[in-house]
Amino acid sequence: MREYDRVYNFSAGPSQMPLWVLEEAQKDMLNYHGTGMSVMEMSHRSKDYQAIIDRAEADLRDVMGIPDNYKVLFLQGGGFMQFSMVPLNLFRKSMKADYVVTGGWAKKAAKEATKFGEVKILASSEEKTFSYIPKVPQSEYTPDADYFYICHNNTLYGTQWKKTPEMLPGVPLVADMSSDILSTEVNVADYGLIFAGAQKNLGPAGVTIAIIREDLIGHAGPKTPILLDYKTQAEAGSMFNTPPTYGIYIAGLMFQWIKSVGGVKELQKVNEKKAKLFYDAIDESALFTCPTAKEDRSNMNCLFVTGNADLDKKFVAEAKEEGLVNLAGHRSVGGMRASLYNAMPYEGVEKLVDFIHRFDKANK
Amino acid sequence: MREYDRVYNFSAGPSQMPLWVLEEAQKDMLNYHGTGMSVMEMSHRSKDYQAIIDRAEADLRDVMGIPDNYKVLFLQGGGFMQFSMVPLNLFRKSMKADYVVTGGWAKKAAKEATKFGEVKILASSEEKTFSYIPKVPQSEYTPDADYFYICHNNTLYGTQWKKTPEMLPGVPLVADMSSDILSTEVNVADYGLIFAGAQKNLGPAGVTIAIIREDLIGHAGPKTPILLDYKTQAEAGSMFNTPPTYGIYIAGLMFQWIKSVGGVKELQKVNEKKAKLFYDAIDESALFTCPTAKEDRSNMNCLFVTGNADLDKKFVAEAKEEGLVNLAGHRSVGGMRASLYNAMPYEGVEKLVDFIHRFDKANK
Repeated sequence: MREYDRVYNFSAGPSQMPLWVLEEAQKDMLNYHGTGMSVMEMSHRSKDYQAIIDRAEADLRDVMGIPDNYKVLFLQGGGFMQFSMVPLNLFRKSMKADYVVTGGWAKKAAKEATKFGEVKILASSEEKTFSYIPKVPQSEYTPDADYFYICHNNTLYGTQWKKTPEMLPGVPLVADMSSDILSTEVNVADYGLIFAGAQKNLGPAGVTIAIIREDLIGHAGPKTPILLDYKTQAEAGSMFNTPPTYGIYIAGLMFQWIKSVGGVKELQKVNEKKAKLFYDAIDESALFTCPTAKEDRSNMNCLFVTGNADLDKKFVAEAKEEGLVNLAGHRSVGGMRASLYNAMPYEGVEKLVDFIHRFDKANK
Repeated sequence: MREYDRVYNFSAGPSQMPLWVLEEAQKDMLNYHGTGMSVMEMSHRSKDYQAIIDRAEADLRDVMGIPDNYKVLFLQGGGFMQFSMVPLNLFRKSMKADYVVTGGWAKKAAKEATKFGEVKILASSEEKTFSYIPKVPQSEYTPDADYFYICHNNTLYGTQWKKTPEMLPGVPLVADMSSDILSTEVNVADYGLIFAGAQKNLGPAGVTIAIIREDLIGHAGPKTPILLDYKTQAEAGSMFNTPPTYGIYIAGLMFQWIKSVGGVKELQKVNEKKAKLFYDAIDESALFTCPTAKEDRSNMNCLFVTGNADLDKKFVAEAKEEGLVNLAGHRSVGGMRASLYNAMPYEGVEKLVDFIHRFDKANK
């Protein structure tokens, strides 16, 4: 690798970003559009900054097709802060909620929610290392639940909900889409609340997006910390206090980039092609296997193992030499993981698959 | 102003940053130190990123002289999140706290704290538009208070504590230093907790720093949202979940810059010179006055007025033409405000003072 060459970065997040986004940020670092200052130096109350956040929200609404009765909030604290905010705001009548535990993050979200109401774990795939998405018959749902919670894509375990569960009437579906938002078309109206930490498909770490149906705002209890009440930022256009201004600007560039490449529809096609190329290579290989149930395999986070920890390490090290970096699995899981977010180009996956073939032959 | 000229930005925050910091960020945007990626794209669990956050913490400890029995936490949510975290964590025995209300932010902090314990407003300068720092005799302090709260510098009203109140034994002093941290030497050991939103002297919006004495960690109640318990990030080196990685990197560059210019001691000298130059010009002017009590005037946020709203507007508009921008006072206060944070060079204040002189003559 030459000093100024960029690598193919398969990190699960923070992760690779489109070169165009970084080049724009670089170009405007000292003087954004003739303002004489960096976006980082801009008052959030200035007209210039207001234009940036307004455009970011409008572009996100456009690329996701967000209905008018949903608020788009730019928040802080990552997905984890949402694990608290969801129960603090959505427990409002029965104080009961259903959680499907499909991985470490869903499990942590459910645990946090038990502080604030009654949590029913409808199903968990933990006994099989979260390698599949459990199917739960509707008859087991809590009929008067205040909400129903899923993690839409499981970054650590490489599974993804391909079809979301059908809700009982009046029960809003809440989805953590931190690792697959904007990678695949979703019908926002199917959800009461979608949230996502930015550091995978949205922008830099430190921005969290919440897309919430308006009738679900305003139910937080009187002892809720003010910034953990969705109402606070919903009423203030995400500017109740200083927002993470630069991160929102970068997220806005990400949305512009998504539009420029044809929107989520096009990205979904490319993501499906990328995932197929990868999983086919693994399925055809003699050495590697994919530990996740075929029908639940994530298009974003793709797990693979040799079954031999030393060989896994060797793979990760040799891949790095080829400029294919951050392929080690999560510290709690081991093996390998290739994260194929929107910003990973098809040729990055081709290079990875080529290396998988060569490694396969060399280590038979 | 030519297109690529930078302005003198007197914004109260987010605000001007040292050119060196922005140039470093620009240079490394596509490929940080040969890693083949931007800092924004780096896994927070990578060695490269660990080195960045470790250096940022070490440099901050160095420039502030932070004792070993204090934790340095990189958090999210701005100063406002601290308004909730302080009471959630520090109410631990008597459930009482003393607040001195010297401005809008201290008032908001006190209001938020009433959700979680008993708040005594020891004094408030609100009846005189927060134009001074009230002196309170120690005999009025709550002897068994769990903490004593001040806002060290009042961004909106242009006052600053020049000498912090002497505490009763066993009562920790908590200070919001969002707008003057690192601008003046402080003895960290005088405080139980110092916090600051980054967007003035520390770096970009979206990073909040808390410096907390270790014995004050671990007292949050069982229903505290997990990220609002200082213990959560204290035990995880601020990496319990993904931190605002890029913001911390920029804050780290700010700390490097502070070291390169001679540390807080040198900055304090320059800041005092800048403030003297400015206030002398106002005091000598026929047209302008400074509405704040002389002995409490902030070296960071300097208020001035003509007493005529139209003339104030004219001043702000004409100053902008000269590349001296963001001089309007806060929307809740009016008049003018010049924020002279660390990154505002002496020559910026000279240019402002020169313009003040000219405007003074032209509008007599």
